[in-house]
Amino acid sequence: MLNFSLIGAGRIGYMHAKIIKAHPKSNLKYVYDVNSKLANDVVKLTGCAKAKSPEQAINSKDIDAVLIASATPTHTKFITTAAKAGKAIFCEKPIDLNIKKVNQCENNIKNYKVPIQIGFNRRFDLSHAKVQKACLNKEIGDLEMVVITSRDPQPPSIDYLKAAGGFFRDATIHDFDLTRFILGNDPVVQISAFGEALFDKNAKKIKDQDTGMFILKSKKGVLIHINNSRRAVYGYDQRVEIFGSKGMVISNNQVPNSVEKFTNKSTNIKDPIHFFFMERYEKAYKDQFNEFVKCVLKKTNPKVTFDDGKKALIIANAAYKSLKSGKVVNIKF
Amino acid sequence: MLNFSLIGAGRIGYMHAKIIKAHPKSNLKYVYDVNSKLANDVVKLTGCAKAKSPEQAINSKDIDAVLIASATPTHTKFITTAAKAGKAIFCEKPIDLNIKKVNQCENNIKNYKVPIQIGFNRRFDLSHAKVQKACLNKEIGDLEMVVITSRDPQPPSIDYLKAAGGFFRDATIHDFDLTRFILGNDPVVQISAFGEALFDKNAKKIKDQDTGMFILKSKKGVLIHINNSRRAVYGYDQRVEIFGSKGMVISNNQVPNSVEKFTNKSTNIKDPIHFFFMERYEKAYKDQFNEFVKCVLKKTNPKVTFDDGKKALIIANAAYKSLKSGKVVNIKF
Amino acid sequence: MLNFSLIGAGRIGYMHAKIIKAHPKSNLKYVYDVNSKLANDVVKLTGCAKAKSPEQAINSKDIDAVLIASATPTHTKFITTAAKAGKAIFCEKPIDLNIKKVNQCENNIKNYKVPIQIGFNRRFDLSHAKVQKACLNKEIGDLEMVVITSRDPQPPSIDYLKAAGGFFRDATIHDFDLTRFILGNDPVVQISAFGEALFDKNAKKIKDQDTGMFILKSKKGVLIHINNSRRAVYGYDQRVEIFGSKGMVISNNQVPNSVEKFTNKSTNIKDPIHFFFMERYEKAYKDQFNEFVKCVLKKTNPKVTFDDGKKALIIANAAYKSLKSGKVVNIKF
Amino acid sequence: MLNFSLIGAGRIGYMHAKIIKAHPKSNLKYVYDVNSKLANDVVKLTGCAKAKSPEQAINSKDIDAVLIASATPTHTKFITTAAKAGKAIFCEKPIDLNIKKVNQCENNIKNYKVPIQIGFNRRFDLSHAKVQKACLNKEIGDLEMVVITSRDPQPPSIDYLKAAGGFFRDATIHDFDLTRFILGNDPVVQISAFGEALFDKNAKKIKDQDTGMFILKSKKGVLIHINNSRRAVYGYDQRVEIFGSKGMVISNNQVPNSVEKFTNKSTNIKDPIHFFFMERYEKAYKDQFNEFVKCVLKKTNPKVTFDDGKKALIIANAAYKSLKSGKVVNIKF
Repeated sequence: MLNFSLIGAGRIGYMHAKIIKAHPKSNLKYVYDVNSKLANDVVKLTGCAKAKSPEQAINSKDIDAVLIASATPTHTKFITTAAKAGKAIFCEKPIDLNIKKVNQCENNIKNYKVPIQIGFNRRFDLSHAKVQKACLNKEIGDLEMVVITSRDPQPPSIDYLKAAGGFFRDATIHDFDLTRFILGNDPVVQISAFGEALFDKNAKKIKDQDTGMFILKSKKGVLIHINNSRRAVYGYDQRVEIFGSKGMVISNNQVPNSVEKFTNKSTNIKDPIHFFFMERYEKAYKDQFNEFVKCVLKKTNPKVTFDDGKKALIIANAAYKSLKSGKVVNIKF
Repeated sequence: MLNFSLIGAGRIGYMHAKIIKAHPKSNLKYVYDVNSKLANDVVKLTGCAKAKSPEQAINSKDIDAVLIASATPTHTKFITTAAKAGKAIFCEKPIDLNIKKVNQCENNIKNYKVPIQIGFNRRFDLSHAKVQKACLNKEIGDLEMVVITSRDPQPPSIDYLKAAGGFFRDATIHDFDLTRFILGNDPVVQISAFGEALFDKNAKKIKDQDTGMFILKSKKGVLIHINNSRRAVYGYDQRVEIFGSKGMVISNNQVPNSVEKFTNKSTNIKDPIHFFFMERYEKAYKDQFNEFVKCVLKKTNPKVTFDDGKKALIIANAAYKSLKSGKVVNIKF
Repeated sequence: MLNFSLIGAGRIGYMHAKIIKAHPKSNLKYVYDVNSKLANDVVKLTGCAKAKSPEQAINSKDIDAVLIASATPTHTKFITTAAKAGKAIFCEKPIDLNIKKVNQCENNIKNYKVPIQIGFNRRFDLSHAKVQKACLNKEIGDLEMVVITSRDPQPPSIDYLKAAGGFFRDATIHDFDLTRFILGNDPVVQISAFGEALFDKNAKKIKDQDTGMFILKSKKGVLIHINNSRRAVYGYDQRVEIFGSKGMVISNNQVPNSVEKFTNKSTNIKDPIHFFFMERYEKAYKDQFNEFVKCVLKKTNPKVTFDDGKKALIIANAAYKSLKSGKVVNIKF
Repeated sequence: MLNFSLIGAGRIGYMHAKIIKAHPKSNLKYVYDVNSKLANDVVKLTGCAKAKSPEQAINSKDIDAVLIASATPTHTKFITTAAKAGKAIFCEKPIDLNIKKVNQCENNIKNYKVPIQIGFNRRFDLSHAKVQKACLNKEIGDLEMVVITSRDPQPPSIDYLKAAGGFFRDATIHDFDLTRFILGNDPVVQISAFGEALFDKNAKKIKDQDTGMFILKSKKGVLIHINNSRRAVYGYDQRVEIFGSKGMVISNNQVPNSVEKFTNKSTNIKDPIHFFFMERYEKAYKDQFNEFVKCVLKKTNPKVTFDDGKKALIIANAAYKSLKSGKVVNIKF
């Protein structure tokens, strides 16, 4: 049994609280949020104690692990505190928006050998994971192309946008990580990025983007395309396609039911795909947490590491450099 | 090169005229229709001669084969004439609506060894034929069930209905033949039939049906379901499913293009399937004719025989007997 | 909060124990099974008490509801006991295999106004329920045909078969209920049944069937086809199709992931569909239980009633009568 | 009726000969090919005359139109000759591999007002054309992204490669044109190109590419992705996806039949998609020719113009510039 403190009780934090509660081998002991009301909701749901401070929650002797789901700028601080306290750490993505802070954090914790897992949930999606495995097992022969389609149902609020660190660091970062997941030990070495504010006035106002297209190249010459949008009216569009010398494997979108309708105007009509990440990746979030619990209990290394979080951010930064310069940018990890 | 006379120049006859013209090894010499205007249209299309009588068309020395697409009650007469003249015969289904006339015709022509092919076009559909082949090759192991869905886009006129010989003999007869095609050398031995006039006032008026469901059983115990309707607003619904000890193979419907649309209300929206048999079986009609030409030129036996036409009618008659008696009826060929 | 006793802790009983535990508004207090070891497993899972007898479990004052998942022949006894004790009742299907016992039970409990829900889980499947709703809302206009495909992945043991009451009462009964669910207030009035033992030696040995086909007719003339098999190598085949004057709606099979593979031999290759009912109807079982809890707490009537259980059995009995007589049989409720 | 001379009787020329022969309003009068044997095959097929020289074929008084399907470097010469002779011109793509020769040709013929159509056959594909129309009609609202997938089944011979002018000018040029077709009056203004020789030794040997990825940007900010490969083992992969403020429309791949297979290992197994362009675009080639005949007979302007051919080449050239410089390149028409 693994005892947890939860730092951050917003939408994502609350979801994690439910997952911790439901898991047969984990238990929520403390919750902390700067917003006392949000912490209370988690107390009500799980019966855990409300910590007076994040430090109390993290350092408490009766806990084994910390789940960090607080605001992004606080991540590195809580990671450092938890590492020093010898707690296992699950931290939501991104580690931080500033690569310097990430590097400093990495340096601060390097001597504390605690397990750390970063919340790139998509790696745990059953379908995406099958695609990755098909790639690894050479089911498609030698990999030649990857095409990732990634479109949110609707743009977030301007407040969210202001704190998010830019479209590429907030949204595309998931796809950069998915790219690394699929490529395995063949690192990406180059990127060319396009970004536009085509429909979201808020994005435009703060000089952010709502639409992006990217080409990356790996060391072996594999070409990767990502297209990313903040808005898709038919739901949360999440597709991954790998193509190689022996064929193609696609992880397709998913509709919540298997009903098809036929009328005098159209056929094979299905409902919209899953609305957003909470629905589409519901199982992936559970499987991600289950993996973390297993790793900590079995003292094995988590599969999605601090280094993965850092490298996704490095790619996002390279993407911005490409966007500004109009050049293909070399990626240096 | 095979020279043809065409008897009957209505909708189906005209279609056959186009196919004869387009085929590299066939040539249309004569056309006859009681309606002179219809015959003229075929003359205009192909440049053939207009025969003064069906007898002239059939007995003419410069022709090798007769394509009979005239009204059903005239089929047996023209088959007999053509057989006596030593011409190869392609006759549209059904041979006749009256089993006595069919038997008599069979008797009349038994000494004239001419090739005869009956127009069960569906056997030549690429997809249905793949299903049959999968069955024959035991790709699904031992056959256990067959499910045939067969729905026209819209009911015919009352005049058509009056001459058609009843829903089972006019429409379901195709599905009875398809059943025999798939079962190969395992004959059907029993049938239970349901029929209703649910929507077509004309069918109701003449005590015909517009909707039918059937279960047949083969000698080996294979169970076959057919459902048949005179109306489907989404197009001409033509599906065949075979199921056995090692799996299932389905011949699905076909949409004329491969476009899918995604909106805020629905996803994967396709256009209606092919409207009717002319569209859905366009290629099957050509392949059926090509098979006939090949058989005649190579002096091999046509695959869809007079006997096939007769047996489909026997099943349709047994279906009516079942409908009237409320009993499972034994089929005797 | 609703406190439960669970009678029967076999495979289905254990599944219900998990569902009761997970539901936010229910609590498992007691479990009873003739096999003490099975009861222990549920105690271990949920921390509930082990009852010394079914009567103790049912009559205990601190429980509100009884979930009956014991052997079929015990159902009516426990229903009666629970009704007399004033407990809400959830009983697995079928109520009993003997219509006399069902009628007697109905008579015994008619004066005890307790809520009773029968476990026809398929009614709660998201996709089947959408089909039913589309029918109810006349989305396909007037209903004309229903086609139900229902195939288990593999036949059960001979011991199971011996106790199951025959293929139609054990397996097809689900499809008979689904038919009634979809037809709403238009009752089925006739049935024609075919049944064969095509592949399962055990079924053959005890003169049971493994393969069945059925046509039912409703009062309004709607035709319904069911095909049912004990074995499908590609998984648990569960499809429902409704067809009417304005179109068609299909509830299709479901694959556990959304991956498609393309090779030099084949395209669009997917994994097998869900293996069996535990996987396919996982959510339906939860939603069924949730509905029961809601009904009891809100004092509304459960939607799947004792009468539904009885009528499904009456149809199954009529099916056997048709099979034996080779006649269309009138269904009298 | 339109009388044609055909220049070039190779694989594509022979296909055009068949189309000219089959069309009700066109007639092939002359054929010319430097390879006399190839010309003979067309004579045998159509009964046309064999011209002694291309000039004879083009200038002959009894012809109205010239179909140019000869080697690419000869296109501009024959276009010029035909324009001066006042003949309608259908010319296979590309006009030429050298933009200077294209510009010179444009200049040479500008005073001869003959109809010219360039053979970008994909514009006439029923499905792609529906996508373009959906875009034009704002069925997806404002266009934001286009994704084109374009993969040949297998790489060509080294001799073909040597004459083809490079992967982008030979293969991707079709996708550049398709991009322009879909964007309508919103011109592309920027391109970033990646190209690799990943699997084809011949391509590597001559420093050509076999795999490419591209991002283009339009004046309005629409982002377009193209991925292009010389080899796909599952067939000729041709997909177009448009995405906008109100949804998405996809033109998908097409399988020659509608059969699906279900086994104990996989489900929904289909045959490979169409093998190559001759199969996939069979109807598009006919419709393209039909459009040309209609335009000439009705004296309207062909929809795929000399200018379209020139602009596709300009984009291909910009793509090479981007590949070499590692920069986003501005496209100037």
